[in-house]
Amino acid sequence: MATRQLAQWICDLKYADLPENVVHAAVRSFQNSLGCIIGGARHPTTIKALKSQSLEPSTPICTLIGQQEEHGTAQRSSRSGAVLVNGIASHVHDYDDTHLHTIIHPTGAIVVALLADIECEKARSGKVTSGKDFITALVVGIETSLRLGNAVSPNHYSAGWHITGTVSPIGVAAALSKLNGLSVEQTVHAIGIASTQPVGIRAHFGTDTKAFHAGRAAQDGIEAVNLASCGFTAAQDALEGRRGWVEVLGHGANSLDEQISQLLTLAEAAKSGKQAESWEIEKNTFKPFPCGIVIHPTIDACIQLHEELGLKDKARLQKTDSVHLKVHHLVLDLTGKKEPRDGLEAKFSVYHGAAIGLALGSATPAEYEDHVVQDSAVLDIRRKIQAEEDENIRSDEVVVTLKFANGEQSVKHVEHAVGSISRPMTDDELKEKFLRQTEQALGSSKVAELNQLCWNVVKADDMTTVLSRSI
Amino acid sequence: MATRQLAQWICDLKYADLPENVVHAAVRSFQNSLGCIIGGARHPTTIKALKSQSLEPSTPICTLIGQQEEHGTAQRSSRSGAVLVNGIASHVHDYDDTHLHTIIHPTGAIVVALLADIECEKARSGKVTSGKDFITALVVGIETSLRLGNAVSPNHYSAGWHITGTVSPIGVAAALSKLNGLSVEQTVHAIGIASTQPVGIRAHFGTDTKAFHAGRAAQDGIEAVNLASCGFTAAQDALEGRRGWVEVLGHGANSLDEQISQLLTLAEAAKSGKQAESWEIEKNTFKPFPCGIVIHPTIDACIQLHEELGLKDKARLQKTDSVHLKVHHLVLDLTGKKEPRDGLEAKFSVYHGAAIGLALGSATPAEYEDHVVQDSAVLDIRRKIQAEEDENIRSDEVVVTLKFANGEQSVKHVEHAVGSISRPMTDDELKEKFLRQTEQALGSSKVAELNQLCWNVVKADDMTTVLSRSI
Repeated sequence: MATRQLAQWICDLKYADLPENVVHAAVRSFQNSLGCIIGGARHPTTIKALKSQSLEPSTPICTLIGQQEEHGTAQRSSRSGAVLVNGIASHVHDYDDTHLHTIIHPTGAIVVALLADIECEKARSGKVTSGKDFITALVVGIETSLRLGNAVSPNHYSAGWHITGTVSPIGVAAALSKLNGLSVEQTVHAIGIASTQPVGIRAHFGTDTKAFHAGRAAQDGIEAVNLASCGFTAAQDALEGRRGWVEVLGHGANSLDEQISQLLTLAEAAKSGKQAESWEIEKNTFKPFPCGIVIHPTIDACIQLHEELGLKDKARLQKTDSVHLKVHHLVLDLTGKKEPRDGLEAKFSVYHGAAIGLALGSATPAEYEDHVVQDSAVLDIRRKIQAEEDENIRSDEVVVTLKFANGEQSVKHVEHAVGSISRPMTDDELKEKFLRQTEQALGSSKVAELNQLCWNVVKADDMTTVLSRSI
Repeated sequence: MATRQLAQWICDLKYADLPENVVHAAVRSFQNSLGCIIGGARHPTTIKALKSQSLEPSTPICTLIGQQEEHGTAQRSSRSGAVLVNGIASHVHDYDDTHLHTIIHPTGAIVVALLADIECEKARSGKVTSGKDFITALVVGIETSLRLGNAVSPNHYSAGWHITGTVSPIGVAAALSKLNGLSVEQTVHAIGIASTQPVGIRAHFGTDTKAFHAGRAAQDGIEAVNLASCGFTAAQDALEGRRGWVEVLGHGANSLDEQISQLLTLAEAAKSGKQAESWEIEKNTFKPFPCGIVIHPTIDACIQLHEELGLKDKARLQKTDSVHLKVHHLVLDLTGKKEPRDGLEAKFSVYHGAAIGLALGSATPAEYEDHVVQDSAVLDIRRKIQAEEDENIRSDEVVVTLKFANGEQSVKHVEHAVGSISRPMTDDELKEKFLRQTEQALGSSKVAELNQLCWNVVKADDMTTVLSRSI
């Protein structure tokens, strides 16, 4: 029943039924994601994927977001190629959004698939897609990914799955089924075909392949909807059935029925204008720092110490004797790399995060470039850092104790890191983040206009405008 | 170590080092697979996938095997599109090869990926690939898939994974790495990128999506090699490492080190001309009947009863009172569908298999068409069949007891079904099977020539000849 109920919900949902908070959360998710895609477009990982497109001769039809022609590569690729490259760009800086309960980064794969599909459809049939239809499909996709993530958490991630890559094919298929007006029956099959293509094993964290998971998941969802719209069949009970998605990938966790039932209740409440529990998309958070979310409290605290203790003064920084981090119990398991060798590995090092916070007072993509990871001042302070897990520390909390050689000591207790549920990034902070990520690539006037376009997306008549301004 | 050792083995293996039996097994695997691809090209499942290609505008460069232009679709598609369609065709009749220990159908995904890659490369650079290079890459791919399958069996399949779809991305990546001369380092990464894309949950058995697993796995392997050849990185210990392929997908099974060590020992023995244990590819078997392998003993017995008891006579058939099957203990779990509704579901019904054997004396794709599954004579006998599992019955064994209304009784004990390891299909039987699958589509003179070409594949100068004769 769960698969069919989900499909029915996908087909039934209308823009008019979306609560204001839900629309606002979707707009923030979109704005943050587009900034990440443009900001990640020139990352070496993305460029390798871009180069690989030349090995697969294709009809250039979809925009490669944030790419420029002077690099010898066209700005367009096949739909499939574009979503791979754009999807990788969306995730490669680990700067995208996070649903904290599941650690899903839901938006990137769905946004790139929707935009490419909209562009492809306009080129083929002239059909124009409005911002309202785009946002409705985006909500459908994100809510689907997060509900399925909830259903198999925490066992699924603990077993080694990169949950972003395993739920996103289904979220993408849900969003595209909505956008293309598939029937309930076709949507059931699209969910099924998507669910049989989970991408992503956690062994690849710290390599190019982590970001690949987001791009491949987007391709998987597109493939599923292509096939389902041609009558291709999958199991009717793909999610809940015997040897279905939850049984095979849940590793014992299974709250699928509860999740779907909540989804239906919320939709009903919204239709009748009743106040209700929040939708999962409202719990989506945005990263101030481009790395694993569990490192954020530490960076927040270390940047504060950098300011308060005047560590910009290299001589003073060098007098640091030791730094002690008291962290949440998952921090070292997820991000315990003591000696990261490059920027991608550094994203999984709480030590690098603390070191750049203390030494540089900043944590943007620039501080995760390879040469910074090997910078002598950063290495020097990094080697003085010790981390200890503590069962009493929450996931958005940290206590950092810094001792100088002369015995002077400073303690910084961050109770809720910037970007957490209790201290979310404001719209203004998101605007600032967007500009910081995109200005260098696109120039400030184009970027200011694009930023505005994102915040007003529900008023857009034709979503391809966003694409034509993103290159 | 295992991932790197495997990559080293892939790069080192030479045609001259392959024992004669291994080459013969590879040729048989290829010949059987090509017949299945052509035979599956017009199946409704394949046609749906073919139609879906029109939704993804592409540069037509690779042959759609066994397709004809009069159906309104070009004979070519993108490399990616062609491997999807051809891969689905290879598996859709459940008539392809089987490695009995793991239930992997290893060859289809690898053959379609290799042929498309060879064709694509010739179009781009003019490079021509010989039959010897093709067979070497095929052996590399099949042996990789089977060794990895052994490493996680039986837990992996029992947990609900369609093992053909989960190992084949890696087998395909291995084969293409070999064909394209990737370095050991690039091959390590190709294995990693492939391994993070397992396809296939068993819930989809009996639907179009089962065959999709083979096609998607081929696409996954291609994507992995494309990216790795552009410098894209994955985990160095993708297979054996923490949260790697074996840990996440093995569900507790792990004989990876042993499997890789056997592989290296065999290669060494072959180089020095020593007699050794057999390679896994030598244990590959071929199906006389287009359905789940565990049904084969039952069909074998029932066809014999059809002949011996004169059941071609409808009146005599109708006098059957009951049929009792004593079967291997996995038969009902895997193929226990009592009331299959169509041809795809019937492939998972030991009852349909027994019914067509008894009523029609034959089990070819024709007896798995939808109308036969609903034929009244077939339904009538099917409803008289009961099956009972018995711990003492081997997987290639069955005892069928047929009782007539007048009390007459006949018992057929098949100890080793046709197509099993103990009673493999002969080369002549494979030739016959090839003709039966392809004649209708391509015409008998073309087919006889193509069959010959397959058996002499190691003498071929240019493998694209096979493709130009397969349409």
